[in-house]
Amino acid sequence: MDSITPLTIGEHRLARFPEGLTLDCGKHLAPIDVAYCTYGQLSHQRDNAILICHAFTGDQYVAETHPLTGKPGWWERMVGVGKPIDTDKFFVICSNVLGGCMGSTGPMSIHEDGTKREPWGTDFPPITIRDMVRAQCKLVRYLGIDKLFAVIGGSMGGMQVLEWTVTYPKMMLAAIPIATAPFHSAQNIAFNEVGRQAIIADPDWRSGRYWHEGVVPARGLAVARMMAHITYLSEKALMRKFGRRVREGGSSGNKFTGNFIGHIPLFGDIFEVESYLHYQGSSFVRRFDANSYLTITRAMDWFDLASDYDGELTVAFSGTSVLFCVISFSSDWLFPTSAARILVRALNQATANVSFVEIETDKGHDAFLLDEPDLDRTIRGFLRGVAEHVGLY
Amino acid sequence: MDSITPLTIGEHRLARFPEGLTLDCGKHLAPIDVAYCTYGQLSHQRDNAILICHAFTGDQYVAETHPLTGKPGWWERMVGVGKPIDTDKFFVICSNVLGGCMGSTGPMSIHEDGTKREPWGTDFPPITIRDMVRAQCKLVRYLGIDKLFAVIGGSMGGMQVLEWTVTYPKMMLAAIPIATAPFHSAQNIAFNEVGRQAIIADPDWRSGRYWHEGVVPARGLAVARMMAHITYLSEKALMRKFGRRVREGGSSGNKFTGNFIGHIPLFGDIFEVESYLHYQGSSFVRRFDANSYLTITRAMDWFDLASDYDGELTVAFSGTSVLFCVISFSSDWLFPTSAARILVRALNQATANVSFVEIETDKGHDAFLLDEPDLDRTIRGFLRGVAEHVGLY
Repeated sequence: MDSITPLTIGEHRLARFPEGLTLDCGKHLAPIDVAYCTYGQLSHQRDNAILICHAFTGDQYVAETHPLTGKPGWWERMVGVGKPIDTDKFFVICSNVLGGCMGSTGPMSIHEDGTKREPWGTDFPPITIRDMVRAQCKLVRYLGIDKLFAVIGGSMGGMQVLEWTVTYPKMMLAAIPIATAPFHSAQNIAFNEVGRQAIIADPDWRSGRYWHEGVVPARGLAVARMMAHITYLSEKALMRKFGRRVREGGSSGNKFTGNFIGHIPLFGDIFEVESYLHYQGSSFVRRFDANSYLTITRAMDWFDLASDYDGELTVAFSGTSVLFCVISFSSDWLFPTSAARILVRALNQATANVSFVEIETDKGHDAFLLDEPDLDRTIRGFLRGVAEHVGLY
Repeated sequence: MDSITPLTIGEHRLARFPEGLTLDCGKHLAPIDVAYCTYGQLSHQRDNAILICHAFTGDQYVAETHPLTGKPGWWERMVGVGKPIDTDKFFVICSNVLGGCMGSTGPMSIHEDGTKREPWGTDFPPITIRDMVRAQCKLVRYLGIDKLFAVIGGSMGGMQVLEWTVTYPKMMLAAIPIATAPFHSAQNIAFNEVGRQAIIADPDWRSGRYWHEGVVPARGLAVARMMAHITYLSEKALMRKFGRRVREGGSSGNKFTGNFIGHIPLFGDIFEVESYLHYQGSSFVRRFDANSYLTITRAMDWFDLASDYDGELTVAFSGTSVLFCVISFSSDWLFPTSAARILVRALNQATANVSFVEIETDKGHDAFLLDEPDLDRTIRGFLRGVAEHVGLY
């Protein structure tokens, strides 16, 4: 990984807001850039826009080839012509979150401070999920939209969806929070903190000023990613995909069979699950910025929708007219169904219009990104229902 | 953590076996030292000995103050006069595992190789759970015992218990494997691998030769420990113990209250669960050796009791006369009850004498070390039953 150079900010479609944004921390951040993609056509009535909120390490490239990795968009199976989120019917928007590293203002952005002109690094102000949502709201208005048809997202994207329903309830018709929770749990915080520690323990992090020295904390970031990746999958999915299979060859060129043979190295890929994790780690560092990792995980940690309402989640949703479709996955242990139930109970108590679906799957948290026909059906059906409800089609 | 110096091998009670041991990897390791503690008196008939097998980062100091940490023994609540494993009745033995760092031969031991005389480091041969058990068996015979009354252990200790029942079934009457599994799962391997990667990513690991340079890979080892520690607890236990509480003061001296206030550092202890993890990480590096961490996690990864029996676990236990008491905890997600059920099904199919208890608790994997009255009752009751069965008392 020594040959990795810092990410360059590529060419992204940007909306610039010179007036900036006053953040939850009290600081004013200006200007701010919001990098985004859109799909489909905005209707004449401007009533068919869907905002998709990406997950922690996702980005705006929902349904097109990623410019950095060359891979398909992260939700191509969900968004497109004839897909559950049908771009023949809907105008779909997705923006890189504030604090991210795919064009929106974040720790990698250049900061002009008196005579200095350099990346923000760890001087980038702490941000919250609400700050991310405020930046998205600016973009939505900039695109000439007063009211979104729906806001949809999974995992941290789901947190943004929930924050939208509380901060801008009048600007949206429907919400689909997927595989998410109304607050980050102690376990969620704990895993995030281990990832952060792995990054800052890497000497190449250089107190966050790695850009200046042409290095990246690749090893620490890879460790953080590998650990996080385990939490995205269920034990059953890992067992089904890899079991205890050993690699033919392995990194050392040895062949391992059976229980235990000859010279076994302590390190390197012995089991298939290890080489899978190594791949996840090393490919991640080519597309993600370590300081964004720190900033965004902190934003997640602070997420607690009820905290502004004396801990009463029901009060947060009081009188809401948003139509909710809450989705969880049975084998998701990072954002388990029990967390979704807390959300649904509060929504019910607030007499919100809410449907709740727990999808049976062994794919774990990542199920929202994977081939899960029940998820497709649920989203397609709910969007159709809302559209009929308001006479959209 | 910069002031930490390498662990010194202290004064431990040792049994030395000059003839050594041929390991599963084919190498011959000689001599080997087995460091151990005992409690209670061996009966005249030598029929009251219980071997306790410690977990991954445990050691032989079961029921006495730890010489390095000054803390009470790790199972004082279970082992002692009048305790469930009653030292008025039983002679209790516990030895540091082969590959460990508390006196038994391991990567930290001095290796004489021609003109060189230095710690083994990563040249220490790879070992298996069966190798650990073979070393224990030598100790048991050295103490003049032909047949153990019981072998008891949790987690990796439980793996050793299971290995005992397959390798030396005639040398034991009863087995109590707790919070364990007949094989390491893909998820278990994945977490271990992330821990290893965190250690070897630390430049102070120095390719395993850190002793020579008076350093230890303290940051990498702490990251590994913090991550592992999360897996030992349930989400519910973390939520109950720490919730989303923020520390008063924190490492930066700031006070955080509510959702978000003023200047929030990206790093350091904000949430109580973080400072708990940091403590776990930093105290661990004072008592555990990084190369032992690598060696022992690999031994766990290789553990698959059925692999020598064409994958048929039932065959491994065929004709066994060992009396089994299998214990799992309802909230243990590292070694879940589903893994214990696989074991119990195989034992039943082998017509073994097996009782199985799933203890309801929200304490997670660590429950076997904690105040869990149901566990005490189960162990006390089972041992009494076996003792009556053979007319011991």
